[in-house]
Amino acid sequence: MDAHLFVIFGGSGDLAKRKLLPALAGMVRHAGDVSCHVLGVGRTPMEESEYQDLAARSVAGLMGQPEAANWAKANVHYATTDEAGSGFEGLAERIVTIEQANSLPGNRVFYLAIPPKAFEGVVEGLGSVGLNSGPGWTRLVVEKPIGHDLASAVELNTNIHKVFDESQIYRIDHYLGKETVQNLLVFRFANHLFESTWNRDRIALVEITVAEDLGVEGRAGYYDQTGALRDMIQNHLTQLMTLIAMEPPVDFSADAIRDEKVKVLRSIQAIRRDDVVFGQYGPGAVDGESVPGYLEDPDVPVDSNTPTAVVMRLRLNSWRWQGVPFYLRTGKRFPERLTQIAVTYREPPVALFGIQHRDMLKPDVLRLELQPNEGFELYFDVKVPGNRLDIVSIPFHFSYDEAFGRIPEAYETLLADIVEGDQTLFVRADEVEAAWRLYQPILDDPPRSLPYGAGEWGPDEGDALLAHAESWFMPNSRVHRPHP
Amino acid sequence: MDAHLFVIFGGSGDLAKRKLLPALAGMVRHAGDVSCHVLGVGRTPMEESEYQDLAARSVAGLMGQPEAANWAKANVHYATTDEAGSGFEGLAERIVTIEQANSLPGNRVFYLAIPPKAFEGVVEGLGSVGLNSGPGWTRLVVEKPIGHDLASAVELNTNIHKVFDESQIYRIDHYLGKETVQNLLVFRFANHLFESTWNRDRIALVEITVAEDLGVEGRAGYYDQTGALRDMIQNHLTQLMTLIAMEPPVDFSADAIRDEKVKVLRSIQAIRRDDVVFGQYGPGAVDGESVPGYLEDPDVPVDSNTPTAVVMRLRLNSWRWQGVPFYLRTGKRFPERLTQIAVTYREPPVALFGIQHRDMLKPDVLRLELQPNEGFELYFDVKVPGNRLDIVSIPFHFSYDEAFGRIPEAYETLLADIVEGDQTLFVRADEVEAAWRLYQPILDDPPRSLPYGAGEWGPDEGDALLAHAESWFMPNSRVHRPHP
Repeated sequence: MDAHLFVIFGGSGDLAKRKLLPALAGMVRHAGDVSCHVLGVGRTPMEESEYQDLAARSVAGLMGQPEAANWAKANVHYATTDEAGSGFEGLAERIVTIEQANSLPGNRVFYLAIPPKAFEGVVEGLGSVGLNSGPGWTRLVVEKPIGHDLASAVELNTNIHKVFDESQIYRIDHYLGKETVQNLLVFRFANHLFESTWNRDRIALVEITVAEDLGVEGRAGYYDQTGALRDMIQNHLTQLMTLIAMEPPVDFSADAIRDEKVKVLRSIQAIRRDDVVFGQYGPGAVDGESVPGYLEDPDVPVDSNTPTAVVMRLRLNSWRWQGVPFYLRTGKRFPERLTQIAVTYREPPVALFGIQHRDMLKPDVLRLELQPNEGFELYFDVKVPGNRLDIVSIPFHFSYDEAFGRIPEAYETLLADIVEGDQTLFVRADEVEAAWRLYQPILDDPPRSLPYGAGEWGPDEGDALLAHAESWFMPNSRVHRPHP
Repeated sequence: MDAHLFVIFGGSGDLAKRKLLPALAGMVRHAGDVSCHVLGVGRTPMEESEYQDLAARSVAGLMGQPEAANWAKANVHYATTDEAGSGFEGLAERIVTIEQANSLPGNRVFYLAIPPKAFEGVVEGLGSVGLNSGPGWTRLVVEKPIGHDLASAVELNTNIHKVFDESQIYRIDHYLGKETVQNLLVFRFANHLFESTWNRDRIALVEITVAEDLGVEGRAGYYDQTGALRDMIQNHLTQLMTLIAMEPPVDFSADAIRDEKVKVLRSIQAIRRDDVVFGQYGPGAVDGESVPGYLEDPDVPVDSNTPTAVVMRLRLNSWRWQGVPFYLRTGKRFPERLTQIAVTYREPPVALFGIQHRDMLKPDVLRLELQPNEGFELYFDVKVPGNRLDIVSIPFHFSYDEAFGRIPEAYETLLADIVEGDQTLFVRADEVEAAWRLYQPILDDPPRSLPYGAGEWGPDEGDALLAHAESWFMPNSRVHRPHP
């Protein structure tokens, strides 16, 4: 791992404190004696020692108090600049000073942990003082959202490309840093049992669920401008979907994989009106506590139609997936926090076990869980011991924790990839734009958001959409519910 | 379950005491209030109370001492007869007396838990007094061995058929009573993931292993006339093999399934000389204790060629299995007691993961374990957490004990099937004969038995036979050993 300077715009912000600084400290610890200096950049003037204290606090849980303070004092720096673009000359000088003082070769990461409206100013500022290239490599990391629709995404990409080459740009989607997601390609392509059945002949349906139990408390003003389609579907769920659906890449290089993901996006049929259900949570109960509805939030307009839940069916025009529905489902104030992908196999061709046992047969399901636990389960039918021919569905269970102990945080994985220069788990410009292109007609003419009670799995109409499948895999019970 | 009288020839023998009486008591307990009377028959004169005490002792572990004594006193009877055929008139009268005294409807099981040389005398004796049919149903149970070669098996079947119809005959193979074996058909045909990959396109090889750690102590005289081919391969391993290889039956009736099993036997190519390895254990160590070799047993001729281990490759001429080797391996004084079936999938078609990772890729393996624990494992490749692309093979694990608690003993399952009249798990005459026909050329001209040390997995030449496959699934380490 190359020695480098990791520059965080928004250095004292929530993401930096909660995720980036701990991930960098974890990365340094696991990579051995890599030289990684951190430069926090913010608008607020702050003593460097004050920022070092902040950094030490945010990594103390990971490495213990005294070591955290030592690490921060030796490796963490702070600078102010202005998001509008002024002050970048000073930043450039500061960077060179830090690099010289610490014998760094000039490899630089610029991480934009700042609000999207500030992206273009910082990028332009970096370009204006020549920080888009340096003595070593230079990489730019952009957090979601990449635009709020197709036009703004294209504009943002265009403007970034004026300063940085696509090969320098790392658009982060932290779901892609999950071990379960990284493992998806190994799982699919290294295992003949799955590789050979991963197609329309064998698989009946795919469901991708990202359920949150939280509501929008404290960020309703932002959320009401965004909604679940922009916040979750366009990026996280669509990314997971492309990894499930993609063809084998020609090799495991970043661009070969991303080429295949773009092909998936292009193969999706224009989304039909009746394949989308929007929902908005009302008052209800989560974990036994009553919680207010979305419209009761003082920062939400009383007539807001912003969806807090989306259920959607995608249809792929591809040789592999023709006729296999892909369901995406996400929402806030669902009964639990759960991210899973359920791949349901077709039923065997004949009912050998007679009518009474036919009812017992359940399709095989491969369930990949990303949150709260990382792992997977394979549900299959077995005979219940005893003389009657009773059949039940039972899971084979695999958990990363149980198998490997500690697994790296998604952010640690992704930051290490950035420093290593591996773009595989980052989203390319054409992927972002293809995803926006897919959803733009819905953004232009959104359906009405249908009510659901807080603590429910979205509106009944979403259930009905999923129920078009012969059966579906309930996230809560983890068992199949037969078609009514 | 019908009220019945269960007649055990060899009623005070080892099998009756260790297996049959406990299995009957277990069956009665689990079936509820079924009326099952037991009549032990032996050559030794014995007071009925003495036999009841014997029966009570053998089921005391199952139901506790006082209940066992009560059960035996109320339900267990004893009679003497002569295996040569005399005394059957008395037996017939005794049966009627017991049935009348206990209001039994005349359903009868005759279980031959006696040495094979006595089979025909008892069968003839039963026929001579009309006990081959009665007021209710009449069923005959025969333990292995069914003959010691093709000619003797045909003769035995012919002689039994003079007295009993095939529909009355239950040839027992206790391996077929294992839950894992019964579940094989459900597993194969109820699960699309397996059903759709269970063929030459997806599966590279199948290995069936029955390993015993014991030697022949105490029964060497019998064993030397038998050997591993007759004792294990012709029945147990061949039965397991036909269940793995069979086509879907037209329904789950006993004859539909047995028709398919016979078809498998008929599809096996004549066994090539170089596809068979015989072994005979020498002195060595098992579990840290040194043990004598087979030829050191005083009851074994010093020049005996009897195999205590057999490794064999079967080649099937069938649409489903052409080109997929089926390996059978069994032996005494192997390092551990283990019965397993390992189904190894082919490798994925291309090496996406580069040369260095190609070495890490292991084929998927479905491992069904029958002994000492019943359950199965599915080995598949996953990515090791962390930033390097390391791949390891990990098992999904399923155990009947863990999933269901107590599972019935194989004998209990089989005795209940006999009383229920379900012949599915019993071996039909034509199956027995087809299996003997397959192995008769080897019996006629056996290879030399090659030495192996006690505590080893048979002779090196057996390993070499298995090593013809690209890799094979080591029973001891449960990992794949690559081809040298």
